[in-house]
Amino acid sequence: MELWFTEKQTPELGITCKVKDVLHTEKSQYQQIAVLDTYQFGRLLALDGIIQTTICDEFVYHEMIAHVPLFTHPNPKRVLVIGGGDGGAIREVLKHKSVEAAYLAEIDGRVVEVSKQYLPEISCALDDPRCHVEIGDGIKFVQEHKGEFDVIIVDSTDPIGPAVGLFHQEFYRSLYDALSDNGLFVAQTESPFYNAGLISDIYRSISEVFPITRLYLAHVPTYPGGMWSFTIGSKSYDPIDVRIDVKGMDMCYYTPELHKAAFVLPEFVKNIIKGGL
Amino acid sequence: MELWFTEKQTPELGITCKVKDVLHTEKSQYQQIAVLDTYQFGRLLALDGIIQTTICDEFVYHEMIAHVPLFTHPNPKRVLVIGGGDGGAIREVLKHKSVEAAYLAEIDGRVVEVSKQYLPEISCALDDPRCHVEIGDGIKFVQEHKGEFDVIIVDSTDPIGPAVGLFHQEFYRSLYDALSDNGLFVAQTESPFYNAGLISDIYRSISEVFPITRLYLAHVPTYPGGMWSFTIGSKSYDPIDVRIDVKGMDMCYYTPELHKAAFVLPEFVKNIIKGGL
Amino acid sequence: MELWFTEKQTPELGITCKVKDVLHTEKSQYQQIAVLDTYQFGRLLALDGIIQTTICDEFVYHEMIAHVPLFTHPNPKRVLVIGGGDGGAIREVLKHKSVEAAYLAEIDGRVVEVSKQYLPEISCALDDPRCHVEIGDGIKFVQEHKGEFDVIIVDSTDPIGPAVGLFHQEFYRSLYDALSDNGLFVAQTESPFYNAGLISDIYRSISEVFPITRLYLAHVPTYPGGMWSFTIGSKSYDPIDVRIDVKGMDMCYYTPELHKAAFVLPEFVKNIIKGGL
Amino acid sequence: MELWFTEKQTPELGITCKVKDVLHTEKSQYQQIAVLDTYQFGRLLALDGIIQTTICDEFVYHEMIAHVPLFTHPNPKRVLVIGGGDGGAIREVLKHKSVEAAYLAEIDGRVVEVSKQYLPEISCALDDPRCHVEIGDGIKFVQEHKGEFDVIIVDSTDPIGPAVGLFHQEFYRSLYDALSDNGLFVAQTESPFYNAGLISDIYRSISEVFPITRLYLAHVPTYPGGMWSFTIGSKSYDPIDVRIDVKGMDMCYYTPELHKAAFVLPEFVKNIIKGGL
Repeated sequence: MELWFTEKQTPELGITCKVKDVLHTEKSQYQQIAVLDTYQFGRLLALDGIIQTTICDEFVYHEMIAHVPLFTHPNPKRVLVIGGGDGGAIREVLKHKSVEAAYLAEIDGRVVEVSKQYLPEISCALDDPRCHVEIGDGIKFVQEHKGEFDVIIVDSTDPIGPAVGLFHQEFYRSLYDALSDNGLFVAQTESPFYNAGLISDIYRSISEVFPITRLYLAHVPTYPGGMWSFTIGSKSYDPIDVRIDVKGMDMCYYTPELHKAAFVLPEFVKNIIKGGL
Repeated sequence: MELWFTEKQTPELGITCKVKDVLHTEKSQYQQIAVLDTYQFGRLLALDGIIQTTICDEFVYHEMIAHVPLFTHPNPKRVLVIGGGDGGAIREVLKHKSVEAAYLAEIDGRVVEVSKQYLPEISCALDDPRCHVEIGDGIKFVQEHKGEFDVIIVDSTDPIGPAVGLFHQEFYRSLYDALSDNGLFVAQTESPFYNAGLISDIYRSISEVFPITRLYLAHVPTYPGGMWSFTIGSKSYDPIDVRIDVKGMDMCYYTPELHKAAFVLPEFVKNIIKGGL
Repeated sequence: MELWFTEKQTPELGITCKVKDVLHTEKSQYQQIAVLDTYQFGRLLALDGIIQTTICDEFVYHEMIAHVPLFTHPNPKRVLVIGGGDGGAIREVLKHKSVEAAYLAEIDGRVVEVSKQYLPEISCALDDPRCHVEIGDGIKFVQEHKGEFDVIIVDSTDPIGPAVGLFHQEFYRSLYDALSDNGLFVAQTESPFYNAGLISDIYRSISEVFPITRLYLAHVPTYPGGMWSFTIGSKSYDPIDVRIDVKGMDMCYYTPELHKAAFVLPEFVKNIIKGGL
Repeated sequence: MELWFTEKQTPELGITCKVKDVLHTEKSQYQQIAVLDTYQFGRLLALDGIIQTTICDEFVYHEMIAHVPLFTHPNPKRVLVIGGGDGGAIREVLKHKSVEAAYLAEIDGRVVEVSKQYLPEISCALDDPRCHVEIGDGIKFVQEHKGEFDVIIVDSTDPIGPAVGLFHQEFYRSLYDALSDNGLFVAQTESPFYNAGLISDIYRSISEVFPITRLYLAHVPTYPGGMWSFTIGSKSYDPIDVRIDVKGMDMCYYTPELHKAAFVLPEFVKNIIKGGL
């Protein structure tokens, strides 16, 4: 049976995958939430029709958004994830033994509930005693916590709809204030192929707030172009100058060598960054 | 008008892009050749319905398939490209001043003609006096030339149809014989996400023939998963231990640092390689 | 969310409709059975990816396959439906008060069960005391009953897979034998636009067995081309020479006048029939 | 190569057909004009992405929009076609020997030119000496001609964009005035399955202006649902009470018997009409 889900990654480009079953759909207060079972990627979570994560390739995004900043900080104890209601980032964060408390500030409680029900492999750590789930506005949560977090991970949806405020400089200033003295944050910052202007703006905005700004890349096959960027703003630790010990941690994408290689950018990506400075 | 071209990258996954115009279609002796003008990628060349190259992202593939092996060899004079009838690899090869002669062995002369007509930005160097276009079977061409080439680039289509013989160990042995004493070759070797078994087999096959085997990656948004692999078989020079001078060469993706970073593999790709050994 | 079901009506033509939910999918002994909830047509039943019936337009097909033959016979008492596991034809048959017994010979018991669960508006009459559901091979069922039915309705899938035997002359001979002295049968006989050769063959086959053969048309929007044909083989009653009283019967498509108008064929359809004679 | 054209017939329903070639696209002053060569239907003309006519099925629409009104009038001498820039209606009109002059009032001259170039089978009669092509606003053309035409054919696009004024009662009054004493007009009036409300409104509007209003149907596989409606407003001749002689005229769909059968409506279409009265 020809049943296909298509995500328009741009108005003129789509990814389309064959669907085995629709496990769940609902319209929450914030967005349409869907869990589809696909032949290629297994179960996938889509918000407003945009693929957020899939059973098959989630390891790339979640390992890279979590371990790069957490290994940059020599002793991360308190970590905040904004967005990330599927729990994948939290799962990776809690692989770090130094972490004493991991907060999840997700605006849409239904994403958390649906992920717990349909994506247990991803959401499993949300019930860990070190994890504290706060359903509410991440921007407000950040404003109400000063100097508290060693690492903040902004695991947001695209800069449309509920996530739009997470891409403004004002928000990066709040992150600065919410971080501890030597803290750092990372945000997912879209595709260099299709969102060059946005990346350029974000990089400049962050570098006006933080002394150290770094962009790195990973291969996420279900995201537009398959090349995804993450940007770090850091108060003192430089992510490309770190010592990493992954002993006892089980990973499928991240390695200490890849941590560094991910910051080596193609010429055109370097130019995107320069374009904003 | 909703006119879309869809490439089924796997039976259950597709990339779909909006088409402005069909510039050319024909059934050659070997395959269906099409040039479409798309909104997202500009003109694209498809062979048997599979995207080979597009105006917008061709720089990634062509720079990475050419400069990594050519900078690995300290003084490449004679270079052979097998396949690659669009001329993009040749264009990058000829950016190297040391190169005295670049041969293109393409089985389908119509691909060359169509590329010259519709993709001049890519095919431009095919008329360079250092370039020699040989229309014919690449396997036979290799067998008839012994010890002649410093670098061979296997820029083939997928391992179905006319290109299937280019993925066999017997062919790698022919490449060994066709290379000069310290020569090396590179082949495009598909997607780690979707062709793990194939990559595993190729890596083992090559490593049984060549003393040095190395796999590297690049981000090609129009190829399945956006992550593409290339594998090098080398008689003596190791591609990760090179000195590179790109002075005066104009590139959009390749940099000397990226040359090395491209060989730093995600854990799951390392495991694909190990799986074959 | 862009989730679309596409039926390839021919290798080069499709109908595609947006899906709200997948209510059921299974692989039965005979075929893939799916019930989808669509925005345009409501719930629809697809067998091996081919739309069989939808909540929104089922009235056309079921009224036209049942009432035309039943009003042609002046006093139909025993009726057989072959195929038609969704129950729609039976529902219409049982609107005729003269009918004492309606048999359903459906090869795939799962179609009946799934229709009862998900399409109650269509399958409702399967539990009527006058209805007898026989799960099994319709061809064999017909062979085992001689002279028993006043009207037989062949409500089959397309002539591929399990239904292929229902389009052979041998089967039409069995139908002749299974009919009572003045009995008649009707079969759904595909699209004049896309299956001209098949219609031509069927018409000739039937006319070699039955003294009266007649083809009529109806508008079914979810079937290829929207124009659907039905062919009657009759021992003595001519469907275009009937008196019809629909008093007390509730219908949305069929009317006594339309009964006759449905036999008035476009010139090209007349030529399809002539082509086979 | 998977190159498909999809027309969204409604926001939740599409027809999709495989494309061999794009013969022409342009943005005229009024609309996007495209001629595609498709595997299923041969060449097709699409305006703003909506299929207007195809080589394979155009005979249905053009015969039915022309011959029903022209055979209703006992002696049509002067005929006006509004829209219909492809020339198909004119071609059928000129099959009537009584016709002395056929005017085409098409707002978009590019449709006429493109049809002449790419659809000669359809546009062939536009060069007939009895045919007069007037490029301009049909509404204005009608207002400027009083009592002149025996038959007017409104062969418009859908009631969006340039054609919207052709579906208003004010326009029907202008048609009344432009017709000769016993004249009549016909308009294509969309799909009973998908545009019930519109048909209902049109029927009432016309019946408030003309003493005789009649709706008839035809099977057009490339139009939504495959069932298409036409509505006639007539000053004195009733289209269901006519004598027809098609001697010497070559037709593929229309027959004198079908002329009458086309006015026999399914129950739900009768209810659509009643709903507006």
